[in-house]
Amino acid sequence: MKLGVCYYPEHWPKSRWVEDAQHMQRIGIEYVRIGEFSWSTIEPEPNELHWQWLDESLDILHAHGLKVILGTPTATPPKWLVDRHPSMLAKDEQGRVRGFGSRRHYTFASLEYREACRRIVTLMAERYGQHPAVASWQTDNEYGCHNTILSYAETDLVAFRIWLTEKYGTIAALNKAWGNVFWSMDYRSFDEIQLPNLTVTEANPSHRLDFQRCCSDQVVAFNKLQVAILREHSVGRDLVHNYMGFFTAFDHHKVGQDLDVASWDTYPLGFLDQEAIYTEEEKYTYLRVGHPDFGAFHHDLYRGCGKGRLWIMEQQPGPVNWAPHNPAPANGAVRLWTWEAFSHGAELVSYFRWRQAPFGQEQMHAGLLRPDAQEAEAAQEAALVAGEVKALAESLGLDEEALMSLPSAGKVALMFDYDACWSLDIQPQSRAYRYLFWCYRLYEALRELGLSVDIISSDASLDAYELLVLPAQAHISPALQARLTAFNGVLLAGPRTGSKTDTYQIPDNLAPGPLASLLPLTVERVDALPNHTQPAVSGRWGAGNLMHWHEQIKTALPCLLKDDGGKPVLMGEGRHFYLGSCIDNGLLKASLAKLAEAAGLSSVYLPKGVRVRERGNVIFAFNYASHEVFFEPEEAELVIGDRHLAAAGVSIWKKR
Amino acid sequence: MKLGVCYYPEHWPKSRWVEDAQHMQRIGIEYVRIGEFSWSTIEPEPNELHWQWLDESLDILHAHGLKVILGTPTATPPKWLVDRHPSMLAKDEQGRVRGFGSRRHYTFASLEYREACRRIVTLMAERYGQHPAVASWQTDNEYGCHNTILSYAETDLVAFRIWLTEKYGTIAALNKAWGNVFWSMDYRSFDEIQLPNLTVTEANPSHRLDFQRCCSDQVVAFNKLQVAILREHSVGRDLVHNYMGFFTAFDHHKVGQDLDVASWDTYPLGFLDQEAIYTEEEKYTYLRVGHPDFGAFHHDLYRGCGKGRLWIMEQQPGPVNWAPHNPAPANGAVRLWTWEAFSHGAELVSYFRWRQAPFGQEQMHAGLLRPDAQEAEAAQEAALVAGEVKALAESLGLDEEALMSLPSAGKVALMFDYDACWSLDIQPQSRAYRYLFWCYRLYEALRELGLSVDIISSDASLDAYELLVLPAQAHISPALQARLTAFNGVLLAGPRTGSKTDTYQIPDNLAPGPLASLLPLTVERVDALPNHTQPAVSGRWGAGNLMHWHEQIKTALPCLLKDDGGKPVLMGEGRHFYLGSCIDNGLLKASLAKLAEAAGLSSVYLPKGVRVRERGNVIFAFNYASHEVFFEPEEAELVIGDRHLAAAGVSIWKKR
Amino acid sequence: MKLGVCYYPEHWPKSRWVEDAQHMQRIGIEYVRIGEFSWSTIEPEPNELHWQWLDESLDILHAHGLKVILGTPTATPPKWLVDRHPSMLAKDEQGRVRGFGSRRHYTFASLEYREACRRIVTLMAERYGQHPAVASWQTDNEYGCHNTILSYAETDLVAFRIWLTEKYGTIAALNKAWGNVFWSMDYRSFDEIQLPNLTVTEANPSHRLDFQRCCSDQVVAFNKLQVAILREHSVGRDLVHNYMGFFTAFDHHKVGQDLDVASWDTYPLGFLDQEAIYTEEEKYTYLRVGHPDFGAFHHDLYRGCGKGRLWIMEQQPGPVNWAPHNPAPANGAVRLWTWEAFSHGAELVSYFRWRQAPFGQEQMHAGLLRPDAQEAEAAQEAALVAGEVKALAESLGLDEEALMSLPSAGKVALMFDYDACWSLDIQPQSRAYRYLFWCYRLYEALRELGLSVDIISSDASLDAYELLVLPAQAHISPALQARLTAFNGVLLAGPRTGSKTDTYQIPDNLAPGPLASLLPLTVERVDALPNHTQPAVSGRWGAGNLMHWHEQIKTALPCLLKDDGGKPVLMGEGRHFYLGSCIDNGLLKASLAKLAEAAGLSSVYLPKGVRVRERGNVIFAFNYASHEVFFEPEEAELVIGDRHLAAAGVSIWKKR
Repeated sequence: MKLGVCYYPEHWPKSRWVEDAQHMQRIGIEYVRIGEFSWSTIEPEPNELHWQWLDESLDILHAHGLKVILGTPTATPPKWLVDRHPSMLAKDEQGRVRGFGSRRHYTFASLEYREACRRIVTLMAERYGQHPAVASWQTDNEYGCHNTILSYAETDLVAFRIWLTEKYGTIAALNKAWGNVFWSMDYRSFDEIQLPNLTVTEANPSHRLDFQRCCSDQVVAFNKLQVAILREHSVGRDLVHNYMGFFTAFDHHKVGQDLDVASWDTYPLGFLDQEAIYTEEEKYTYLRVGHPDFGAFHHDLYRGCGKGRLWIMEQQPGPVNWAPHNPAPANGAVRLWTWEAFSHGAELVSYFRWRQAPFGQEQMHAGLLRPDAQEAEAAQEAALVAGEVKALAESLGLDEEALMSLPSAGKVALMFDYDACWSLDIQPQSRAYRYLFWCYRLYEALRELGLSVDIISSDASLDAYELLVLPAQAHISPALQARLTAFNGVLLAGPRTGSKTDTYQIPDNLAPGPLASLLPLTVERVDALPNHTQPAVSGRWGAGNLMHWHEQIKTALPCLLKDDGGKPVLMGEGRHFYLGSCIDNGLLKASLAKLAEAAGLSSVYLPKGVRVRERGNVIFAFNYASHEVFFEPEEAELVIGDRHLAAAGVSIWKKR
Repeated sequence: MKLGVCYYPEHWPKSRWVEDAQHMQRIGIEYVRIGEFSWSTIEPEPNELHWQWLDESLDILHAHGLKVILGTPTATPPKWLVDRHPSMLAKDEQGRVRGFGSRRHYTFASLEYREACRRIVTLMAERYGQHPAVASWQTDNEYGCHNTILSYAETDLVAFRIWLTEKYGTIAALNKAWGNVFWSMDYRSFDEIQLPNLTVTEANPSHRLDFQRCCSDQVVAFNKLQVAILREHSVGRDLVHNYMGFFTAFDHHKVGQDLDVASWDTYPLGFLDQEAIYTEEEKYTYLRVGHPDFGAFHHDLYRGCGKGRLWIMEQQPGPVNWAPHNPAPANGAVRLWTWEAFSHGAELVSYFRWRQAPFGQEQMHAGLLRPDAQEAEAAQEAALVAGEVKALAESLGLDEEALMSLPSAGKVALMFDYDACWSLDIQPQSRAYRYLFWCYRLYEALRELGLSVDIISSDASLDAYELLVLPAQAHISPALQARLTAFNGVLLAGPRTGSKTDTYQIPDNLAPGPLASLLPLTVERVDALPNHTQPAVSGRWGAGNLMHWHEQIKTALPCLLKDDGGKPVLMGEGRHFYLGSCIDNGLLKASLAKLAEAAGLSSVYLPKGVRVRERGNVIFAFNYASHEVFFEPEEAELVIGDRHLAAAGVSIWKKR
Repeated sequence: MKLGVCYYPEHWPKSRWVEDAQHMQRIGIEYVRIGEFSWSTIEPEPNELHWQWLDESLDILHAHGLKVILGTPTATPPKWLVDRHPSMLAKDEQGRVRGFGSRRHYTFASLEYREACRRIVTLMAERYGQHPAVASWQTDNEYGCHNTILSYAETDLVAFRIWLTEKYGTIAALNKAWGNVFWSMDYRSFDEIQLPNLTVTEANPSHRLDFQRCCSDQVVAFNKLQVAILREHSVGRDLVHNYMGFFTAFDHHKVGQDLDVASWDTYPLGFLDQEAIYTEEEKYTYLRVGHPDFGAFHHDLYRGCGKGRLWIMEQQPGPVNWAPHNPAPANGAVRLWTWEAFSHGAELVSYFRWRQAPFGQEQMHAGLLRPDAQEAEAAQEAALVAGEVKALAESLGLDEEALMSLPSAGKVALMFDYDACWSLDIQPQSRAYRYLFWCYRLYEALRELGLSVDIISSDASLDAYELLVLPAQAHISPALQARLTAFNGVLLAGPRTGSKTDTYQIPDNLAPGPLASLLPLTVERVDALPNHTQPAVSGRWGAGNLMHWHEQIKTALPCLLKDDGGKPVLMGEGRHFYLGSCIDNGLLKASLAKLAEAAGLSSVYLPKGVRVRERGNVIFAFNYASHEVFFEPEEAELVIGDRHLAAAGVSIWKKR
């Protein structure tokens, strides 16, 4: 594992640059991301290009053996560009222009802005494509941050009409696919179609889903444009984009297809405080380390988006500035997060940012250095990890190359599908049941059983897996149906699986639609419950409660769990199982343990707050609790750390 | 009682239509509502009229003995019409156009849209006015749904200025009536007046009240236009509109004057989950049957709007799709709701909808049939009721005509006035005291005492009543004052009664204004309380707490209840009583029982969850609790059901 | 102390005016504020001036010995003026015009509106500047009410660009000061700068802070324009403006520099119900008297804005109409509030309003008279106070002049700085820590210790104080640093003091920035906590909990309080102390008591709900509890009231 850092030489006097590079070296940093917000420094006036500062920065970093991830600056177009191309600005759902003054002030669909990006990226790629310091390029920065995927400007409408024309060919086909007869919503031509905002009540869900897909495709096209330029001018460099946590507004699998590595920006404390996914109790318990599955879930998700390759582009090093409350991490938390990333296959963990900026929107965001250039706590933890990586390689008798090549895949797969997420969010039916949350809670339960999980797309190969979980795969394509049928492991499908067609209709045979061939059952009715009502569930596999979503199912399959009226909740036999309700964590774990057993996998109930992950023959254990916990895996030998895991502690074991 | 269903032949292949009609017949359905969202099917291109599908549908239904309620399609104008008349679109309070893409995309004040409606309604009426299947017409659909009464477009402004000119004659009269001197808000001409939105702080309440009245009057005029056409071309058919639950934004009494029957759309579970009127405990307790007074309150309200005639146009048959959570009804709930409607005088209960649509916004809304055309639970309950109706008629020795003619009026009247509702909502003074909620809680208490209640307009005759409750009649017109003075029963007036003049000023003599002649008292001051403070109340009629609203009153009347400072809370003598505070349910019941006694009516404390209603010599008992309850009225003989009412159970008794 | 009342002769028939004046006299009223909303009465048509009614009103009041505070009517420009100058209207943050129909429909930056104000104020000042009744002028009314300081119209943008040009001179200087390099936000000219609204995510905090300052300066300029006219035409009259509670959007110290007296509008119950600053328990406990420090805090704050002179322009006399709930005051509360004002130096307490208006937005707002002209409760309490003032003067052996001249300054100063408030609100870092709330809680703790506090600006002289509290002085100017260095008393600085430069950057040496010379410490990191985590604190000065904000500090100073990790929370020695966290009320009181002791001041733990204040040798005691409390100061003799203070009771003592 390599360590990296995000660095903004343009924020500091030139006289600091050598000292910064030396200091990075001392800590054990090997990669430096730069440039992604620097357009106005590169080109302060139209066509007046100031490359010298960037030339010098790259040369200094190179001279100190640091490798550079160079960012294209397209997330922050300068004011003069916006003034020349006002149509590049997005509009929000209320129809208001989203103006200049912060960042991400553009809509992906703007052809004018794409042309401006083509120009600046080409100029950068021509100049630095072959620079020896440049090991990688990051396209733009955090696509979609600040809710910027859906835009409702004129340019978006044009793009949407083109997209629909290409998809449906005739307006009659669209009317049928959307069911526009429902409320006299039929169109006579594609030119009559509007964006699905500012309607009197909700627009047709088929309309909304297609708009979401179209917007996602604009991101793919926007990214592809930069990729093509970089591939041409900078052969052999890894192309990467930095994704975000709990963000599903575009299809990361599709964007990832065009890149070499997936990276993401991980802020465990900011997200714990901010996200509705977490209970108040979790927010209290994990205040200073983050939720035990936050990092892991995204590591496994994005490794799947990165064709198996994962970087952390931004790792939280201290308090951030953007959550409602911004606590300091526990001692050791930065080290724990870094090792957790490695255990899921990360090749690189890069801290955001090198030195805390004393100005601008993020001046309260900590860095490895404080604004006064003194080391913050995280610098020492990073240095500690840098040393431990070497020690680990040595203990395992591996060189660093071999250490980084340890396999990171699991035997359990959880399918995460962006299109399914959009589908179910558009009409949730119960506020309490959301796709992302349900995926997360399934993942959590699997991980609490000590299982190493891959999170895969609906296109991914299933060959390597013994157990496959489809949390709520709304639409089952013929291709997916075929692969599921061919799958040899144990399959669990969750509520709402197969409940929609490709254009957001209910399948003729009702849910689970095409999957009824594998899972002979019919979802007759849905009982979408508020939190206060959680009916009892019991059966051969355990007892507990269901909540939020409760399908009333007709089936001849054996029932492993039944509701208080004796109706099926979890059913199946052999290799195919269906869960028609959300169930509580205890019952979920019990059920998944049975399924793992059926799949020939061994599982274990880990102590609260403890998580483990395996890479090859190495076992990593992490303690997210705020007190010491004893943990010792079976048949393994301690390499780093202690059986008594301190709060935020890490231990590393070698399997015997 | 007849059963009906809402049906959309345009959603299904023609090949299904005969089968659908046969199936309806089998279940016992006699009425079918169709057509109300079908404009784009009728007229897919301007002036290109496709009647054939509708001709065939009507013929098939007729051939199977089904009677049709034909809807004018004006709630969903097609896209081409909107594009031709963009000024027909409403604007929301923020000034944004409310566009095409769902339904109800028009403002009632648009003369262009009214003209377009005149044309399509005339065409339909000419074609089908004499069709033997057509028994009734429904105008438009759910006026005001999705908050569409108040619109702030230019056309609304024009309408408002005309309305004001007609009402006030001179601008000086308006300035005086509104008290515009207050903040230099005087106008020099009607052309200076704006709509009361987007002001710096709240607009003058007189201004707001007149705007609400004007918008309500636009609905009346819009409906009247359709009525005139239908009356001309379709003599002898019942004209009806389908109102909604807890909806007060237009004056239903005024709209009802032009129609033959009032109908409404009843969704007991959706409203329970959605409405702030209900406590968390009620939402939990009545999750699967709805609140015991939800249906009843509206049945009695709309029977009053329908000159004594009531239909249920849409009855919830299973889970709906539009509430935050959408649970399934309890077994028996659909039957219970249907009988409850009958007990309040409903001639027709029509389920929404025949078959669940697999597309569009409401694809998760249950029907009598599932999307795959199999019967859902409600179909069987409807069939059961159809049989029971016949059985009941037989047991009572009546033919069906006579059964439907059983009198449905009560001896207790509660006055519900839309103008009063608007007045008190515009300046609530305490967030915790709302007109609608207070009316509902008064109704609930009366009903928990076993009383059958009529809900009447302020214009209604009072002759038939022994007890009259004015919950909070803000403005007492001279005509109402005269009728109250002449009223021979017992009168209870509640807080805020008589507190405003017709143009939203405080009466010269303070509240209760003109009613001081009957109720010699003065409301000296109002103490508008947050929930946490509920002073004690006690007196000859009971003890408990007041809440939300507490008037400080000077009077020489005898006090039946006093506050903890000894000041009057409930006062009066002989036939006239005044309640100056909201009081808790227990004390409210105790007080109403005393008043009923004074009015010569007998009351009874029903078990929790149980409600009864009388029609003629028949007593209906309903159990909204989720457990069995014993209930037996005095001096009556069981006809249908059991003394031990199951959860969601119904029993029917004949008075001895 | 004089009593006054707000009066609107234009709301009533002329025939009432003499009776009103006589009635005021009887109650003991000596001052009458009139005219501030009367523009449309003065000038119903452009240039058609109706002075007669105002001439007569002034003459009648004068004839009855009443002194007039004449309001300029610029808070309510008439409709015809708005129609002539539509650019005078403000726009809200969403870009919507804030239209006519209520009040305050203008933006301070509008030069067209300023010209219109110049004209009407000049006309009024010419006509009445020398009128014998006119003792004072009030400029406009409640600057900023209804969130009207920040406006986002074109005219505001022009003003902002000019303001920035004047401040920064060159665009390069601005770019550097704002750190615009951060996200490529550099500008090439002042004409490129936009207002900081409708950006994709938050605008640069430096941008936001300067916009806030610019808007505040527009208020200063707007007020100065009126002041200049009034000074010219009405020599010798006191010029005053009426400020509001918990309102910080403009710099009241700067506006106050141009006026003779500060006044404010005090609504203890409305604010208790409305403000998030208060806990639910406080809202319950003080429902009918208001929070014990609400009035006092603002009296001391605005006396500081008024160069030592304080009036109450609007005193709540009964229930108001604008809070979510509007309870009636306790018996005696109006008297208590009036005496509390006097004890903080108020020369005048004027009740709002004389007679409750039966029309307009505030028709539910109580007055001294009811709408029917009968006395409301408050009239009697006002009359009682009028008598007691005379009695007190007599008891003390002073004439009324001498009584009003009793010194009102305290020995403890709390610095309140509007610029600091804006700075910390722009990026709060923890939602739970707000400048205003923290100042209020510090003030409360000081007052619970029986200390009389001055609230001073950052420019104020420190000479008179023994103890100075800087709650969170974000920016320490060189001048302030010099004065703090010279200060001879005990200094306590709180969290975030010295944490920002003048242009919203982090100081080079980190917080406390320039204050590190007096307080040798470094704030290394901030731990911004949610409510649920309140770490323990203990040390030589007490034990308790910290909350919301927790600085991690490096210092060699002695620690009086430490956190549970042994790190400094409260530190200092000699005369200089620093508190790095918010701490609970008990610990805050203990700490402040120690600091008071170090400053040579004696303090006392007052009973809950009781507060005292000293003026000269007079001690006032107030009981805000809802039950009787015994209280007796040491070495003092009872003059008015009783040792056993009734609920809402007042006692007045003379020091021996």
